[in-house]
Amino acid sequence: MKAVRLNGYGGHEVLELAEVDDPQPGPEDLLVDVISAALNRADIVQRTGGYPDPRRRKGDTSPEIPGMEYAGTVAAVGDRVVGWSVGDAVMGIESGGCYAEQLVTHHRLALPVPPGLDVSVAAAVPEVFITAWDALVVQGGLTSGRWALIHAGASGVGTAGIQIAKAIGARVAVTCSQGKMDACEGLGADLVLERSPADWPAALQAGLAERGNTVGVDTVLDVVGGAEADRNLRVVRPKGTIVQVGLMGGGAVEVNLGLLLAKRVRWVGTVLRSRPLEEKAAISRRFADEVLPLFSSGELRPVIDRRFPLADVAAAHAHMEADANVGKILLDVR
Amino acid sequence: MKAVRLNGYGGHEVLELAEVDDPQPGPEDLLVDVISAALNRADIVQRTGGYPDPRRRKGDTSPEIPGMEYAGTVAAVGDRVVGWSVGDAVMGIESGGCYAEQLVTHHRLALPVPPGLDVSVAAAVPEVFITAWDALVVQGGLTSGRWALIHAGASGVGTAGIQIAKAIGARVAVTCSQGKMDACEGLGADLVLERSPADWPAALQAGLAERGNTVGVDTVLDVVGGAEADRNLRVVRPKGTIVQVGLMGGGAVEVNLGLLLAKRVRWVGTVLRSRPLEEKAAISRRFADEVLPLFSSGELRPVIDRRFPLADVAAAHAHMEADANVGKILLDVR
Repeated sequence: MKAVRLNGYGGHEVLELAEVDDPQPGPEDLLVDVISAALNRADIVQRTGGYPDPRRRKGDTSPEIPGMEYAGTVAAVGDRVVGWSVGDAVMGIESGGCYAEQLVTHHRLALPVPPGLDVSVAAAVPEVFITAWDALVVQGGLTSGRWALIHAGASGVGTAGIQIAKAIGARVAVTCSQGKMDACEGLGADLVLERSPADWPAALQAGLAERGNTVGVDTVLDVVGGAEADRNLRVVRPKGTIVQVGLMGGGAVEVNLGLLLAKRVRWVGTVLRSRPLEEKAAISRRFADEVLPLFSSGELRPVIDRRFPLADVAAAHAHMEADANVGKILLDVR
Repeated sequence: MKAVRLNGYGGHEVLELAEVDDPQPGPEDLLVDVISAALNRADIVQRTGGYPDPRRRKGDTSPEIPGMEYAGTVAAVGDRVVGWSVGDAVMGIESGGCYAEQLVTHHRLALPVPPGLDVSVAAAVPEVFITAWDALVVQGGLTSGRWALIHAGASGVGTAGIQIAKAIGARVAVTCSQGKMDACEGLGADLVLERSPADWPAALQAGLAERGNTVGVDTVLDVVGGAEADRNLRVVRPKGTIVQVGLMGGGAVEVNLGLLLAKRVRWVGTVLRSRPLEEKAAISRRFADEVLPLFSSGELRPVIDRRFPLADVAAAHAHMEADANVGKILLDVR
């Protein structure tokens, strides 16, 4: 089959479209014909050598195939698989291997493409909607009536997070660059703030106060870190939760822990990729129950910025690195 | 009645033994004849003006009476109080007011002095054992078989934490100054490490490895903060919890959030004093059920460093500030 593999680590030149061996499904796996894959920021970090595929065994020198989410159709099912048939529309998250015409996935990780969602856009769903929902709702405790703050509101995770917050009856403030503020408002954000170096904490507090909230936000979903870390502690309410999902702005931070104590804040770090199979399967099943129906009812929809053919993967990476996208960047595999 | 009140904020000279009005119990309160009160570090901060009694109303200019925990006997019960009688031995935590011959407390906050524990030492129990148990077990998820790391192992909270960890079947590593290492070992700590600037993380990891633990500690109870914050992130295991109970080493810290993310750490700030009544009552009831029986059975015992008469409160504060104590410092009120 054709796949994009990493010929070493580095710039776009290491992304190499090549003929590779077909993947072999085990007895609990699905073999998937991939229709499209979606890009994630972690793909860039993986390409430059900072985030190798955690499934690789020591001494494995075969080239890594990047790509952490996909949508397609089931091409074959292992002997012990139940609940899936050849031809089913499927989507999901993997630790790598999605920039390819075929992949294998454990059947308990695979998600059905919900009725009403076109499989050609479904690759834009799993990573960002699971990440945003897990961070806001499962770990962040967001409920109806409460306020979320989401940094990088126009990012994939941000656009998913805004929709999820609104769908469950919560209210949501976001930060983003000036050029993306309209897009965030269009998705339903209640308060759209220009990101740092603007003084967004003051603007947030003023906006919350106008809406009757003088205590702060209940849940922060932060993919930025860096200088935002200390500001998050300032704007979160007593007993609130900060869920740290990424560190696009840097991981070495200076913070005032006095606020962590006085407000009794929970600050939780999270990643999906390194979780063990049983945790990934559990969160996938719960996501299927609680969130996928909202795609069929139209309350949630994938936000797609642009699509590239698989052969143009270098251009797709460059587009993500330019940081001008609103929502997801897809690779059409077939 | 006689009480120690703050005549302004500042040094020991503001601690003034004086005749003050008797406290008046409401219908849900107990009136307590205080036998002894215990010192807490927060008393020092309160004395110097950094931690005023949160129960004071705006504009209240009456002198603050410090003191956050006590033991004594019930002198009177309000009309709506059930479960308490005059003469009962009682102990508990208050937001202030314990450096006094009498105090009033809500009956749902009061704890019975458990059978077998002398009321003359009981004031050394509530604050540190509730704090250590709440941090390690309730918020930190410590269970049998798991490892705790407790900073300042010879402090009041530290000596309580070591005993609680051992009593529930957990294992415990502590840091402390060199002169207090024997005391920590005597209380049952499995690993005793000299505190910073010594390289305790390396010593901890070596000690854990000898005992078959190569992943790190499950729960960190930290009253220090400062330079220890980043080290905590280094030694905590994946999905572990850091409970930040104090900041004796400073609150402005530099940390590497990459570890928070990669290990999916929960970092929780906590204080007891500012909690609302219903939370304090709930944790007091649960503590009475789960922890007080361990005092009667002898698995837990208060660790008392030294006792001072109430009139020598300035000397007691000086003794705490000298940082040479192992366990609690008590004030004998009558």
